[in-house]
Amino acid sequence: MDAQNDAALAPLVAFSDGIFAVAITLLVLAIAVPDLGSQQTDANLQSHLADAIPSVISFVISFVVVGIFWLSHHRMFQLVESYDRPTLWANLFFLMTICFVPFPTAILTRYGQLSTAVVFYAASMAVGGLTLALLWWLAVIRRAHDRSHRRMALYFESRALGMSAVFLLSIPLALINVGYARYAWLAIVPLYALLGRFFGREVAADLRPSI
Amino acid sequence: MDAQNDAALAPLVAFSDGIFAVAITLLVLAIAVPDLGSQQTDANLQSHLADAIPSVISFVISFVVVGIFWLSHHRMFQLVESYDRPTLWANLFFLMTICFVPFPTAILTRYGQLSTAVVFYAASMAVGGLTLALLWWLAVIRRAHDRSHRRMALYFESRALGMSAVFLLSIPLALINVGYARYAWLAIVPLYALLGRFFGREVAADLRPSI
Amino acid sequence: MDAQNDAALAPLVAFSDGIFAVAITLLVLAIAVPDLGSQQTDANLQSHLADAIPSVISFVISFVVVGIFWLSHHRMFQLVESYDRPTLWANLFFLMTICFVPFPTAILTRYGQLSTAVVFYAASMAVGGLTLALLWWLAVIRRAHDRSHRRMALYFESRALGMSAVFLLSIPLALINVGYARYAWLAIVPLYALLGRFFGREVAADLRPSI
Amino acid sequence: MDAQNDAALAPLVAFSDGIFAVAITLLVLAIAVPDLGSQQTDANLQSHLADAIPSVISFVISFVVVGIFWLSHHRMFQLVESYDRPTLWANLFFLMTICFVPFPTAILTRYGQLSTAVVFYAASMAVGGLTLALLWWLAVIRRAHDRSHRRMALYFESRALGMSAVFLLSIPLALINVGYARYAWLAIVPLYALLGRFFGREVAADLRPSI
Repeated sequence: MDAQNDAALAPLVAFSDGIFAVAITLLVLAIAVPDLGSQQTDANLQSHLADAIPSVISFVISFVVVGIFWLSHHRMFQLVESYDRPTLWANLFFLMTICFVPFPTAILTRYGQLSTAVVFYAASMAVGGLTLALLWWLAVIRRAHDRSHRRMALYFESRALGMSAVFLLSIPLALINVGYARYAWLAIVPLYALLGRFFGREVAADLRPSI
Repeated sequence: MDAQNDAALAPLVAFSDGIFAVAITLLVLAIAVPDLGSQQTDANLQSHLADAIPSVISFVISFVVVGIFWLSHHRMFQLVESYDRPTLWANLFFLMTICFVPFPTAILTRYGQLSTAVVFYAASMAVGGLTLALLWWLAVIRRAHDRSHRRMALYFESRALGMSAVFLLSIPLALINVGYARYAWLAIVPLYALLGRFFGREVAADLRPSI
Repeated sequence: MDAQNDAALAPLVAFSDGIFAVAITLLVLAIAVPDLGSQQTDANLQSHLADAIPSVISFVISFVVVGIFWLSHHRMFQLVESYDRPTLWANLFFLMTICFVPFPTAILTRYGQLSTAVVFYAASMAVGGLTLALLWWLAVIRRAHDRSHRRMALYFESRALGMSAVFLLSIPLALINVGYARYAWLAIVPLYALLGRFFGREVAADLRPSI
Repeated sequence: MDAQNDAALAPLVAFSDGIFAVAITLLVLAIAVPDLGSQQTDANLQSHLADAIPSVISFVISFVVVGIFWLSHHRMFQLVESYDRPTLWANLFFLMTICFVPFPTAILTRYGQLSTAVVFYAASMAVGGLTLALLWWLAVIRRAHDRSHRRMALYFESRALGMSAVFLLSIPLALINVGYARYAWLAIVPLYALLGRFFGREVAADLRPSI
């Protein structure tokens, strides 16, 4: 990326990073503060806090997913060689899915025992992942001249597609058993480890010093 | 813009961008998380989520409008040649309209079937657009020496005025039929395409590399 | 300010600016979205929106006050010559008063017809102003070597003290008549104009190009 | 820290600072705006505001703790010599505990008279402090070559561990008497003064100019 381009993209990067920072911090608002009503006892608060554990797990899941999205999105702008109108619109749409995340998170947090909530959440995350994959293709892959840029972009493309696939495949599972779907999301961890191994030391070494 | 001016305006740009990033992310809070009460069933959640679709569309509209405002406002500060007290106050007022957007968005989200809500939303957005137009005139147009700066400023001026006109013209429509007003807002898309064609390749080419 | 100091303070400035941007944007949440209950009619929404006008005015007041605080605080860090522990703590306390502003704003917004709400709001703003005045003294005035720095600092010191005085003097007024107190706050506008004239063109000219 | 590393870490630092700024500003939302119902009188609002004093104190405590966390985290990135995967994950986990703080703060704010709330809050803060201590060890201590870097890191390590110890030791106290636990947290002030004296002028002098 030449310096001129860098300067031109800097405001968009700063704006996107601001949106990510706010969206990831708003996630905590999805955890409802329990209302003890007239029974202000330790036993009652303990039982409400125990009931809130699934909500906290949902918060953690969304936090990690948005964190992964941020890492990928931020890395992308270090590789962008040029930027056109379709990329701009895809980026706007991607940022909109990030800003939207607190809503499906709140749904999952409050109604996580219902398969509808799990399906809605998984579908929202899959849309985010697919938009990110489209963005990698538009912004970097389709015209990367630099071989190492291209390889890095393919690595992140496969991560975004892989995450979307896991979320999409969890949807039929959620219709069978809500708990299974959540466990299925954990498949992202070994999947990412596999992709890291497949793309090899080159990509990993290139990534490490720059986060 | 000379470097000295650039450094002097940098904090204001950073502060404005921060406000935009927070305001655009707060929009999602306008989508009410459904309260299923005692009927915690999939059918009930599905019907509530279906009912939330207009809310999500309102969120999308506000996201796009604030995004367009940000783009225009950010671009302005790249062209500013000098900055005086009236510009400072107009800018403060413009930022206030941006911070205000989550309120009319929440009104539209909750009461979008009432023409009052649509009129209130359209009027709020029109005020934002007119303030932005005033700001372009104060900050750039009235004393731009550089011809290409001036042309770019006129392009954004006409965009801001055009958006305001669409929102203002949608107000009488909303009093006839709420749905018509929303469709009318879509007129911004062809309007912007026309303006892009009118101001020509020069402006478009100048815009592309810098977002 | 030498370059080394500048670099050392940059993170604190960025952190403070972030806090200001979030706090000023959260103010809108103090305007309660009306709950129409079962009477979802245009007449009802219009009457609720009319009732919300004092809330919107409270939002505007807080927005302007926080905006003035930001301008002053940001300007301070351009003049800081050195920074010690008391300054650090006073700054932390000042930022805390900024983060706190959404609470008295919400009180004023919801209970603005009660003198208690107006007194609480005026007292909170006066504490903010006095902390800002202390901060100007600690961070700049007590050891400014540069004469123009010192004069600029005295200008902002008198603005912060003047704003605090107006809010403090409005407290007895609020106990007599709630409306009087609000009008009294408008005294900040001519007061600032007077201070600008007193400190003269030198300060005003120095301010203009750097916001 | 060499310049290349600095540039590579800059986005992570900016992202972390954004999260801190949003999280610290969201704390105020934990202070519930009193609902006077039909008794809209000054006496009623005064009694509600008096009842809110413990909430405000909880807000202040969280503000100071998050402020201390920010200072330590920001300082860390000025000393980082290299960065690997475990550090990245520990950092993500630490940021998650920061984003989580508004929830235990809201619990403490609403149910501060119950020992369960105090224990939950103290445990959450202790987890944050221990994660920060782990992060200092991973990111700086285990491989700092520079002697003054190492000493500074040990200073912050002992601060993080000391804060965690105070919060952990307050847990049995909270089970005896809720009020005692809160007073116990004040032990952080003399503890930090002691650590400052123990690590000596060298560290203090090094800290002062760079906040």
